[in-house]
Parts: sequence; structure tokens; C-alpha cells
Amino acid sequence: MAQLPTAGNLDNLRVVLVSTRNPLNIGAAARAMSNFGVRRLRVVNPYEVAFREARSAVGASALLAKAEQYDGVAEAVADCRLVVGTTVAGRRELQHRLQRLEAGARAIKRQLKTGPVALLFGSERFGLSNEELSHCHWVMRIPTREEHGSMNLGQAVAVCLYELVRGRKTAAAKIAPGGKEKKSAASREIERLTQILLEVLHTSGYVKPRAVVAEEKLRRLVRRLVLNADDTAVLLGMVRQIAWKMGVEQKGDK
Amino acid sequence: MAQLPTAGNLDNLRVVLVSTRNPLNIGAAARAMSNFGVRRLRVVNPYEVAFREARSAVGASALLAKAEQYDGVAEAVADCRLVVGTTVAGRRELQHRLQRLEAGARAIKRQLKTGPVALLFGSERFGLSNEELSHCHWVMRIPTREEHGSMNLGQAVAVCLYELVRGRKTAAAKIAPGGKEKKSAASREIERLTQILLEVLHTSGYVKPRAVVAEEKLRRLVRRLVLNADDTAVLLGMVRQIAWKMGVEQKGDK
Repeated sequence: MAQLPTAGNLDNLRVVLVSTRNPLNIGAAARAMSNFGVRRLRVVNPYEVAFREARSAVGASALLAKAEQYDGVAEAVADCRLVVGTTVAGRRELQHRLQRLEAGARAIKRQLKTGPVALLFGSERFGLSNEELSHCHWVMRIPTREEHGSMNLGQAVAVCLYELVRGRKTAAAKIAPGGKEKKSAASREIERLTQILLEVLHTSGYVKPRAVVAEEKLRRLVRRLVLNADDTAVLLGMVRQIAWKMGVEQKGDK
Repeated sequence: MAQLPTAGNLDNLRVVLVSTRNPLNIGAAARAMSNFGVRRLRVVNPYEVAFREARSAVGASALLAKAEQYDGVAEAVADCRLVVGTTVAGRRELQHRLQRLEAGARAIKRQLKTGPVALLFGSERFGLSNEELSHCHWVMRIPTREEHGSMNLGQAVAVCLYELVRGRKTAAAKIAPGGKEKKSAASREIERLTQILLEVLHTSGYVKPRAVVAEEKLRRLVRRLVLNADDTAVLLGMVRQIAWKMGVEQKGDK
């Protein structure tokens, strides 16, 4: 794939398609990515035939051939420091902080300067599940009409990526050097913190073992904290010490 | 079709698909129009079978059923006071004034306040011909990469319409129930959380009792989380339960 004129920042973006069913949609997402200069595609639990068909389609890009496949959202976003879900109008039961696409894209662009960002798109029929969303820091909403919110997947990807490249040339010229925001934590670390905290909460009797809703709630809560890498390491140290004191058996202890 | 909250301006927009060949693309264009609240679709010289198939597709919108068919661009744009063609990067021989989508959309929005505007999209393979473009006042360009400019038609329509509704205060801008900004926590509660966490950390051996620096560090860390009131209450409950399990004596226990 040809080098991007604005390489660098957009190379930090990972488009993550979760449980996509239609090969045409995987192909369309890849095409929009190529149009707007985004090359890292990840697919989570795709309908296997769809993924194979999309890959072998005539004209399928190198981008599609290099797409990475994962079994779960956690693995697909493990190296990302910001994880953003997408949704459309009309989803009522959302537990997350919601940003309109315009504002959300600004936040994503800031983060792209410092490290990997995952942008998640759910399945054609159901969008992202609550479990899938629980891996997200916040959710971005495409401003469709209330009466007909549901977008075609390929079109949703195109619109989101367009917003990210929109006005780029001017914006790129204006970037001032030396912003010293703290590095955000990788999702892998955030999830580690979540899991050990969950163990501690089990042991203390705060939640029952294998309580799925509690786990999702805790996961969302920890993401809402928008932790930086240093604070995550400190908190992890604290919770580990507490776990040790309480006699919680920790993975990787041996 | 439900009334648009911002009716008026967008009702002046006519999306004109010229020589479209694939019924899926006609359907996708109609869907994006419905998503973004644009209802007037016109087709010029479509591949007849494609148009019939698109219209009879399951779930085809009222919008598609009401699409108007024309034999030429001249007829299709006859009532419009501004006619804008669309293109992508890499088209060399263009005779027209070219505007980037961002700037072009601003001009279109101004014109929509006063009368009908046509936005033209060419065929999947060739885009708009010079003859077709000759009916346009100017041409708008979607900022795709030079190396892969050619966009899927449905995605191009979605991106252009998104730019036109972008930043609009539609009903879609309303914040969903779960997305409300939560009330921030009172400092009192944050400090309560800090103190009991500190007790737990003492008991676990993570920090020594009365370690002033550790206490300040922890206080700063907890503030950096910018907790809302609800999350603070949840975290306080968690830490209290952990403290109880560890046998930490809590102030106010008696």
C-alpha cells in the first residue's frame, strides 16, 4: 500500500469490526479505510465464511489480506490506549458516556498523536453488545435521525473515518510540538487491573464469583476513570498487595 | 416518512444519481439519505433493471418508492438554483472550480436556505462525464487519498450528506439517558474514599502508617480520576467491603 501523505497519526488507528456477518460489509469497510488512509483492520469473531469471502474477493486490498483476526474484543484492543465504540441514534440503554462524532473525533485525533486507538463497529443487526461496549472508554454517536438511526456498516465506517481526516491539511500544519500529556494506559493493563480487582471483590464478598453483570459494571467503571499508564501501574501494585494480603490466588504468581 | 426536526432546508436538497448500475448502490444511497434526513432522490438514466430491483428490495424506503426518474441531467436539475457535481481525488482533466467537501458543504447550506440544490453522483465506474459535469456550477471533492481515490457510491453519498448535517442541532444531538453528564463527586466523598483506601493500604503493607508522602500521592491519584458522585459511592462500597474483610477498623464503625 502506498505511503500516506499524512502518515504517522492515522497509522495508530485500528478499525475493529466485531461479529460482522456480511462479506460485502467487510469489503466496504476496508475500501473506506483505504480511501481515507487507514490501514489497520482487525476483525473479532467474524462469520468465518464472510471473512474468507471478503478476503478472496476480486480487488480485495492488501489491507484486507493483512487484517488480523481475534476471538474477543479484549484481545483485539489489548495494545490500544483509547477504545471507542460507535453507535447511532435511538439506542436507549447505553451505560457509557456518549459523544457526538464531531467532538469524539477531536478527542481521538489528540490520542492518535501518542498511541494506538481502537474504533469499534458492531454487528449489522445488533451493533455492539453491552459486553463488547464494556471494553470501551466511551461511545461515539453518528448524528443520524431518531426515526431511522440504523446505518449500513460500510457507510458508518466511511463517515467516521471521513470525520477523522476532515480538514486534515490545515489541522496538521497547526500542530504544536511538545504537548506533554501523560501516556494513557494500554487496554491490556486496564483489563489486568479490572480482573484482579474483581478477584479481590469476590474474596471480600462484594460480588459473587462469575457474576457477569457485576464484571461488566466494574469494567465500565474502571474505563470511566480514563487512567494514564503511570497511575494504572500504581493502582495495579496496590490492588495486588491487597489481594496478596487477603490470600487471593493471583494468576502468574507461580 | 417522519417529519424532520429541521425540515425546510434539507427538503431543498435533491440527490441525483446519474447512470447508476448496481441496485445495491441505489439502495445504499437511499438508506444514507434516510439516515441523514434527506428525502428527494432523483435518478438519471439508471440501468433499468437495477432501479427496479432497488425499488422492490425488502425494506426499500418510501423514499426509494418516490424517487423520480429522468432521461438526462438537464431535466433532473431543471428546478435547482445550484447544481454541484461530486468527484474524488485523482481526476485530472477537470474543467470546473473544485472545492473540498468541507468548504463546498458550507456553500450548499447557504443556498439551501433559499431554494433547491442538486447534488450529483456519477456512475460507479466512470463518475460524472464531462457532459454531465457541464450542468454543474462547480464540483465538490471528497478528500480521499490520491493513491486510492475511488469511493463506493453509497459511501460517497453517506459522507457528503453527513458533511451537510454535521454540527446541526437536530434531535439527534439530544443526549441519551445513559449519556447524561453525571454529577461530580463532592470533595468530602472523595476524601472519604481516599482515607479508607489508605487504611486498606496500610493493613495490606503497601504503605507504612502515617507515611505523609504516600498519603499525598494517593490523594492526588484519586483526584486525577475525576470521579462522579455515583462512581464514588460504588468505589466507597467496594473499598469498605474489602476493609471489612481484612479486619481494618473503620472510623464510625461503632
